[in-house]
Amino acid sequence: MCYIVLTNGEVDVEFMHYTGITGGGLMSSQATASTRLAPDVDFQVTPAGYRHWRLTFDGPVATLAMDVDEKGGLVPGYELKLNSYDLGVDIELYDAVQRLRFEHPEIRVVVMTGAKERIFCAGANIQMLAAAPHAWKVNFCKFTNETRNGMEDATVHSGQTWIAALNGTASGGGYELALACEHIMLVDDRSSAVSLPEVPLLGVLPGTGGLTRLVDKRYVRRDLADYFATRPEGVGGRKAVAWRLVDEAVPRPQWDETVARRAAEFAARSVRPERASGIKLTPLAKTRTADAIAYRYVNAALDRSRGCAEITVRGPSVDAPEDFGEVHRQGADFWSLAVTRELDDLILDLRTNETGLGTWVLRSEGDPGRVLAHDMLLLDNRDDWLANEIVLYLKRTLKRLDVTSRSILALVEPGSCFAGSVFELALAADRSYHLSGVFEEGGPDAEPATVTVGAMNAGPLPMGNDLTRLQTRFVGDANALAAVHARAGEPLAAEEAERLGLVTFAPDDIDWADEVRIAIEERASFNPDALSGLEANYRFTGPETVETKIFGRLAAWQNWIFHRPNAAGPEGALRRYGTGQRADFDRRRV
Amino acid sequence: MCYIVLTNGEVDVEFMHYTGITGGGLMSSQATASTRLAPDVDFQVTPAGYRHWRLTFDGPVATLAMDVDEKGGLVPGYELKLNSYDLGVDIELYDAVQRLRFEHPEIRVVVMTGAKERIFCAGANIQMLAAAPHAWKVNFCKFTNETRNGMEDATVHSGQTWIAALNGTASGGGYELALACEHIMLVDDRSSAVSLPEVPLLGVLPGTGGLTRLVDKRYVRRDLADYFATRPEGVGGRKAVAWRLVDEAVPRPQWDETVARRAAEFAARSVRPERASGIKLTPLAKTRTADAIAYRYVNAALDRSRGCAEITVRGPSVDAPEDFGEVHRQGADFWSLAVTRELDDLILDLRTNETGLGTWVLRSEGDPGRVLAHDMLLLDNRDDWLANEIVLYLKRTLKRLDVTSRSILALVEPGSCFAGSVFELALAADRSYHLSGVFEEGGPDAEPATVTVGAMNAGPLPMGNDLTRLQTRFVGDANALAAVHARAGEPLAAEEAERLGLVTFAPDDIDWADEVRIAIEERASFNPDALSGLEANYRFTGPETVETKIFGRLAAWQNWIFHRPNAAGPEGALRRYGTGQRADFDRRRV
Repeated sequence: MCYIVLTNGEVDVEFMHYTGITGGGLMSSQATASTRLAPDVDFQVTPAGYRHWRLTFDGPVATLAMDVDEKGGLVPGYELKLNSYDLGVDIELYDAVQRLRFEHPEIRVVVMTGAKERIFCAGANIQMLAAAPHAWKVNFCKFTNETRNGMEDATVHSGQTWIAALNGTASGGGYELALACEHIMLVDDRSSAVSLPEVPLLGVLPGTGGLTRLVDKRYVRRDLADYFATRPEGVGGRKAVAWRLVDEAVPRPQWDETVARRAAEFAARSVRPERASGIKLTPLAKTRTADAIAYRYVNAALDRSRGCAEITVRGPSVDAPEDFGEVHRQGADFWSLAVTRELDDLILDLRTNETGLGTWVLRSEGDPGRVLAHDMLLLDNRDDWLANEIVLYLKRTLKRLDVTSRSILALVEPGSCFAGSVFELALAADRSYHLSGVFEEGGPDAEPATVTVGAMNAGPLPMGNDLTRLQTRFVGDANALAAVHARAGEPLAAEEAERLGLVTFAPDDIDWADEVRIAIEERASFNPDALSGLEANYRFTGPETVETKIFGRLAAWQNWIFHRPNAAGPEGALRRYGTGQRADFDRRRV
Repeated sequence: MCYIVLTNGEVDVEFMHYTGITGGGLMSSQATASTRLAPDVDFQVTPAGYRHWRLTFDGPVATLAMDVDEKGGLVPGYELKLNSYDLGVDIELYDAVQRLRFEHPEIRVVVMTGAKERIFCAGANIQMLAAAPHAWKVNFCKFTNETRNGMEDATVHSGQTWIAALNGTASGGGYELALACEHIMLVDDRSSAVSLPEVPLLGVLPGTGGLTRLVDKRYVRRDLADYFATRPEGVGGRKAVAWRLVDEAVPRPQWDETVARRAAEFAARSVRPERASGIKLTPLAKTRTADAIAYRYVNAALDRSRGCAEITVRGPSVDAPEDFGEVHRQGADFWSLAVTRELDDLILDLRTNETGLGTWVLRSEGDPGRVLAHDMLLLDNRDDWLANEIVLYLKRTLKRLDVTSRSILALVEPGSCFAGSVFELALAADRSYHLSGVFEEGGPDAEPATVTVGAMNAGPLPMGNDLTRLQTRFVGDANALAAVHARAGEPLAAEEAERLGLVTFAPDDIDWADEVRIAIEERASFNPDALSGLEANYRFTGPETVETKIFGRLAAWQNWIFHRPNAAGPEGALRRYGTGQRADFDRRRV
């Protein structure tokens, strides 16, 4: 038995048409390298528009109840039964995480639970996974991982503790959601269980951090974790507690009372402020045309012929306010927050909707002094909950850049403001070019571009490996790192920045255009898969954490498995699930 | 344009027949899940039979010159031009590493160089890679990685320092060989360079540790490493030194003299003994039939119907010698060394030649006391070079097990000797079953099986993550680890071993057969790819090292890239290399 694969197309594309699982929603049948993998996905939602979650508030405790609308799939072709989720469900979850942090400083505990009877969540929707092209699966997992990391970040750094109140069975991605919470409660009713049935039922990994969090966060012993992950029915009750899979199993009669008591206990320990008012995350002013995405401080020119997005980040247009009260008044209009929200949305948009743009070129425009002043205002007021949240959000957004499978080049040109927080963008890049001198066309009076190391580069914005981008850059070279920090606050011209190792190259006007052009063209000529692997290996030097293990090790294995016929082929486990037919495996171990 | 893919077969299989690159040497055209990927590969060679290396000795310095026989490929269909290598070349290299350690205690420095004019080594043979099935590529990389790790182990732990004397260009895998050496010398002649051209030329990663060693061992700055890995012509001379790609660039006129001086300097620092005699690594007594592999202390029953190899390791048949001089006299016949060599060969044989056997069931037979006595003899004499080498070899062999993509089950039954070094096998397993009580058929007088923690479990045999298997098992649970070490030396029965967390399950005679049978059958029923991913994620909890990054992160990405059409498809970079046609990529980023 044979099937036809279109040369140079995703194998998965053909799977879909071969089986007719989807009606072409996820993918057009004319898909080629230059067309989209999927329709545009919009990451901007509001609680009023939630289809899948109910968010309620009771003093310091918010309850986020999962209540997935079966008919509310983002793409036609599947039903979101049993509180299973797709990207649309997770986009709402991400929105809720963000709003809880910015709009609800009074919230100290978030109880995540299920609104359906006897089921918490059945995990990622299998029909969706079976039908989705490879890139869609990979990007879906990346975004869901980032959202779960954000829940952990709220617990650890914001005093907003997430509790999983599993009112029924949590399977696969449902249990992985719980694993991202600080405390897991499971109803003890002889039928509810937690499980990771991906390997036995679907032939793929629990790829949203489950394997890593079991052994490296909850310290479940590896052999028990092995047994657990091969047992589709999962483990409940006291055994789930004994094996550290959950923190407590609570009989149903005491359920509501115990959940409330636990929430109150965690709330009592929180450092959240007593009587703070949130700020409103107002809708982003965004325009999107065929070849550009524009916000107030960020824009991107989409150059499809060169496979490149040219992104410009603008610095503050006014001086930093004198006192922090003004930041509360400005709210979402405050530059640091506004630019971070825009960057966050742009990264998600480009990553999901513009897979053909393999290189992102980052520029900045503005006054470096104003950037540093805005940074210092935040850091000097770090004990203010809003300052804290803005810095944490910037940290998470920069982390998103680190795990983005695009080549990133930073161009430091006259008029730029690569200082402090904005300089982190250049440090996140795979390579940077810093113009030595000025462009002839800029006239002899133009100021040469500089980069400036600031306090934001020295700790508040760590990468997933828990090192700063500077520490990561100079891993194993303490002298170079010290030399760089010794120059903090000083605008450094190209030659000096290159000498200190802060930028990769410092060509002058004569060489600039050619060097940059060649870098972009070269990047577009290479195998994009190899570039993703190259970048994923280089970007995280030094120590590893749960987070880097999830993105580096777990995700890389899952990507491989997702691509193998044993999972994604027409007779693979993912495709045969629910058909009544057993998967037909090539049993050879690789 | 289309090509046909056989359902459930390796895509690569068809690639080969489609293009006719190979004549079927690597793969028979009737390949199915139940047949072999390749002809049997024999890992036992002797220096007299080397076709690709010349090993010479001069006092404390050995020179290993690469001189690959173009016609000496392991499989028909490619020529090993420009000192490029295939598995056969690496099998000889591995043999040389081993013999240098055991047969040549006088050797303090190994100079690895090229015997061809103006080329050190062009890396892994591309025609071979292009033609090889996916599993072959993956396993080839695994073995070559292990060999390079062994060179580093000799440098760090044996006082046998490896120096790369690059007499000409070292590309790709050639440079990766150098990266595994302690000191890299490159001839400075305006043409010789080091390079990693895999991404730009072949569309795959430098997958033999290159990326990881650049940034995490040699601390090459990530942006320079990025540029370097996209520049096919590489970097030579002073820039290669400045970027830390090599340690010194030496003009050709001073080459021989400088290499000799450097070798003498490293030799002077070695802790190797002054006047020791090596032992002979005599040929293994091995028999291989259709369904069994047998050595003196190790044997394996190959159960193809159940997809399982049943491996039994026998303990020492006599008491440990009184004094260590006797170990020198016994040489390769000494139990600890003999059993390690057999296990090493068996792992390589099964891994390469028996890919259909997805589960390895480990048993032991013998006297636990004798195992512990042999262990102690080695550890009490650790300052003896031979004791040190045996322990290090056992460490490396157990590490091979850790990175083997097979499910490993350990069965602790009456008559077994899971103590100390042999107990490490059970600790390396994904799961262990320890019989509670005895088998009825064994009679009422049989002794119940025990496991015993010994000194070998407490430090000398770390995993790739630099933790012991016990530390890894109890990562995050210091109390459990302490409780286990407190019982060192005590034979622990099943219930106690289970309670302490040393074994996974302790079924009794009534449940034993069913539980074990189900475990084996279940394992055989799952997607083998998902199991490989599961095990790779669970086996290395805790911290990461260069070694775990290579096997976990780098290898997982490479496996994915190896499987993608952009590299391995008929229009992919790997297949089009050298044809004069450019690769045709699907440019969408995943």
